[in-house]
Amino acid sequence: MGQIKKAAIIGGGVIGGGWAARFLLNGWDVSVFDLDSDAMRKIGEVLDNARLSLPVLADAPMPKEGTLLFAETLKQAVAGASWIQESVPERLDIKHNVLGDIQAQCAPDAIIGSSTSGFKPSELRAGLLRPEQVIVAHPYNPVYLLPVVELVGGDDEGSKGAVHLAATLLQDIGMKPVILKREIDAHIGDRLLEAVWREALWLVKDGVATTQEIDDIITHGFGLRWAQMGLFETYRVAGGEAGMRHFISQFGPALSWPWTKLMDVPDLDDALIDKIASQSDAHSGAYSVRELERIRDRNLVGFLGVLKQHHWGAGNCFVDWTNNLRKTADKIARDTSTQALSYYQSDVLPAWIDYNGHMTEYRYLQIMSEATDVLLGRMGVDANYLAGGHSFFTVETHIRHLDEAKLGDRLTVSLQVLQAEAKKLHIFQTVTQQDGVIVATGEQMCLHVNLQSSRAVPMQSPVAEAFAELAAAHQSLGMPEGAGRSIGAQK
Amino acid sequence: MGQIKKAAIIGGGVIGGGWAARFLLNGWDVSVFDLDSDAMRKIGEVLDNARLSLPVLADAPMPKEGTLLFAETLKQAVAGASWIQESVPERLDIKHNVLGDIQAQCAPDAIIGSSTSGFKPSELRAGLLRPEQVIVAHPYNPVYLLPVVELVGGDDEGSKGAVHLAATLLQDIGMKPVILKREIDAHIGDRLLEAVWREALWLVKDGVATTQEIDDIITHGFGLRWAQMGLFETYRVAGGEAGMRHFISQFGPALSWPWTKLMDVPDLDDALIDKIASQSDAHSGAYSVRELERIRDRNLVGFLGVLKQHHWGAGNCFVDWTNNLRKTADKIARDTSTQALSYYQSDVLPAWIDYNGHMTEYRYLQIMSEATDVLLGRMGVDANYLAGGHSFFTVETHIRHLDEAKLGDRLTVSLQVLQAEAKKLHIFQTVTQQDGVIVATGEQMCLHVNLQSSRAVPMQSPVAEAFAELAAAHQSLGMPEGAGRSIGAQK
Repeated sequence: MGQIKKAAIIGGGVIGGGWAARFLLNGWDVSVFDLDSDAMRKIGEVLDNARLSLPVLADAPMPKEGTLLFAETLKQAVAGASWIQESVPERLDIKHNVLGDIQAQCAPDAIIGSSTSGFKPSELRAGLLRPEQVIVAHPYNPVYLLPVVELVGGDDEGSKGAVHLAATLLQDIGMKPVILKREIDAHIGDRLLEAVWREALWLVKDGVATTQEIDDIITHGFGLRWAQMGLFETYRVAGGEAGMRHFISQFGPALSWPWTKLMDVPDLDDALIDKIASQSDAHSGAYSVRELERIRDRNLVGFLGVLKQHHWGAGNCFVDWTNNLRKTADKIARDTSTQALSYYQSDVLPAWIDYNGHMTEYRYLQIMSEATDVLLGRMGVDANYLAGGHSFFTVETHIRHLDEAKLGDRLTVSLQVLQAEAKKLHIFQTVTQQDGVIVATGEQMCLHVNLQSSRAVPMQSPVAEAFAELAAAHQSLGMPEGAGRSIGAQK
Repeated sequence: MGQIKKAAIIGGGVIGGGWAARFLLNGWDVSVFDLDSDAMRKIGEVLDNARLSLPVLADAPMPKEGTLLFAETLKQAVAGASWIQESVPERLDIKHNVLGDIQAQCAPDAIIGSSTSGFKPSELRAGLLRPEQVIVAHPYNPVYLLPVVELVGGDDEGSKGAVHLAATLLQDIGMKPVILKREIDAHIGDRLLEAVWREALWLVKDGVATTQEIDDIITHGFGLRWAQMGLFETYRVAGGEAGMRHFISQFGPALSWPWTKLMDVPDLDDALIDKIASQSDAHSGAYSVRELERIRDRNLVGFLGVLKQHHWGAGNCFVDWTNNLRKTADKIARDTSTQALSYYQSDVLPAWIDYNGHMTEYRYLQIMSEATDVLLGRMGVDANYLAGGHSFFTVETHIRHLDEAKLGDRLTVSLQVLQAEAKKLHIFQTVTQQDGVIVATGEQMCLHVNLQSSRAVPMQSPVAEAFAELAAAHQSLGMPEGAGRSIGAQK
């Protein structure tokens, strides 16, 4: 992600705050401009939520969080910003004024994204100095977790360029840009949501179900489907062997049934508002909005973790994002070969903490294993060597936990080769805190194998020579304390 | 769940097959009647999917699977059935005939549920012998995983009694019945889905987005929200501190904007069907429907596992279901306490495979550790126990790799308690393939600690007693092969 970039957030509500958090946690500096004196507190709360959730999805060190500034003027906010996001109230006259003011102050090559739910770019851009600079970049709440952004520009080349630049930039911060082929009121997602919302209002008004019952049907039914396969893919699966074409054709007649009431807009009078508000209180009133946000984020982190693990849907955004973070973090310390080598450093990440409040046991083996892989790579076990049909398999591991590691601790794994002879590689790992305290030790026996037969065979050149040399150098270190023990042995 | 019950499934497509699987895996006998000679194969495939997914969500032994029979006559199918589920094609004349035939043969106190997506009970019941016996029980695909069922009856007392009996019975098999206050075409969920479907068809027809882009916006945005909070609860959170009433009032004006096209029904002509089918092929054609079903189920199991862990939304159905299974399984668990217990099963997931093409080492420790956590939970180390300031910390681990595990392998971790005395818990884990081949063993020493001081202290009641009893029962198993070894030792 290179040098520090700056984003300007104009309008600091829930959506503006979500954008601010998304940029800050990805290492961008962020400058917020909002006339509301309460904006600082509100953004602080959104940021607290984001800090608790987004990093859990990174199996890699996060970049240093950017600097958050509250600007006193719009000019100060947009100065030096390469992304400017407008999230002011949904009124065209207000948006027009703000976008005009931004253009008067900002860099001409900055991207100006509008979070608008409903307005088309042509409406937003009318009469502006540089219309091609303004695009719709409509996110979903919570912006720091949900990846999708609807991008809509105009038909001119300048605008198309801005949209594609925006897409690249948003991908860098873990998002999923979807570019609309042409502009349309309310873009795509909000048109779908609007349709559901109208129908749901009728169901409540007509007393068919309460808000909770409607929510239950969504959360215990098609909501779970849509978190991983959308409307069309779900119907494709439902169509079964007969296929999508058959399924849709079948659906045809039902479309003309007078099911939905959507031709009419329900009158949102006081009686209906009261009904909804009191049903909603009965359903969710036991929780504050802050608590519901935390619950929502914890669930979303869980779902996204599942999808990330399976390389599916929204999880892929986090796979790519993690890989980028890893590239940026240089973990390999070049060191001397005559001492136990410090090969690997890692921060203790949020996802590594268990219910005991400390780093969970299998993550120790993960970093020891990653350290061993780094050593193997340096000894010549690279893609060519693997392609030649040889590798090392671990056959035995002994781990001792001597102290605890907590969230954010920076751990170092040092490696000592105890024995490297023909087929056998016997290594000892020491995991230390920055102050030198040993948190854990690992001892592993690895066998050099032929990948075809999965049988142990002698190491090949140049790996055999490299390990022989390293083992000889490590002889002088002697046997480390704790090596060679069995479980429960005191010595 | 008591004695074995029998369900009759009339119509064995995807929905009928899903019902069959749901009942069978909950220990019911199931008799299927379908004139399609291919029904047996189709139901077998649905059942295979269900066997791979539903049991993953049970932290308890599943009941013995019921017996599946394909009946030659309707009479044979419904004989002795206490639940009869009709899932024949969505045509009123067909449903009428089938429901009439069922009533002529079945027990008068059996529940007859119809899976209909669209018809009202009054339409289904018209002219039947015992109208109060027939209710709408509309599930969501996949029926064996998604809990929600919409229940709709008539206004008569007999029908209300049937609906309430049905609700109790469905809860027993892990489902979430939602009872509609009055009948309405297409019930609730399908009205919402219909609204989205119509709008989505317009977006495709008008070339605003492809089926994949629409699906991406759902799966990377509001679909993730709706898997855990519905339409109303999500808006409550979005409304923030100002509250639900404020949020809805604000939404009022937007409702009258001419956004949705839902007043018109798009003409589902060949051109539109072609467009959708070919876009869907481009999006999902790389996978067969069978593969997509497996992917869908794996994701749903992941999501439901997250929700279950957090006791939220659809997860609560699985909490209750697991508790019921445990009660039922109590006797079985006592019987087997003298053997090493199989506590945990896990599929080898794609993210677990390393460059050697097999399951990477730290994932072994992960599943062993997860298995241990399940054991701890059953011995009484729950949220209350932790809140009381005590837990177990692992101090030493010894892993032996005896064979390889590959992508998709289903591994079982069995646990044997070698010693449980005061502060010390010494356990042995065996990881086996489905064919019984041992892939790895783990040996761990855990200390019971005071979480404040992180110092070892004796186990508290009732955990101490539970472990003492289990350790005594496991004594008879003797020392497992490979226990007590140090690295590299041959004996």
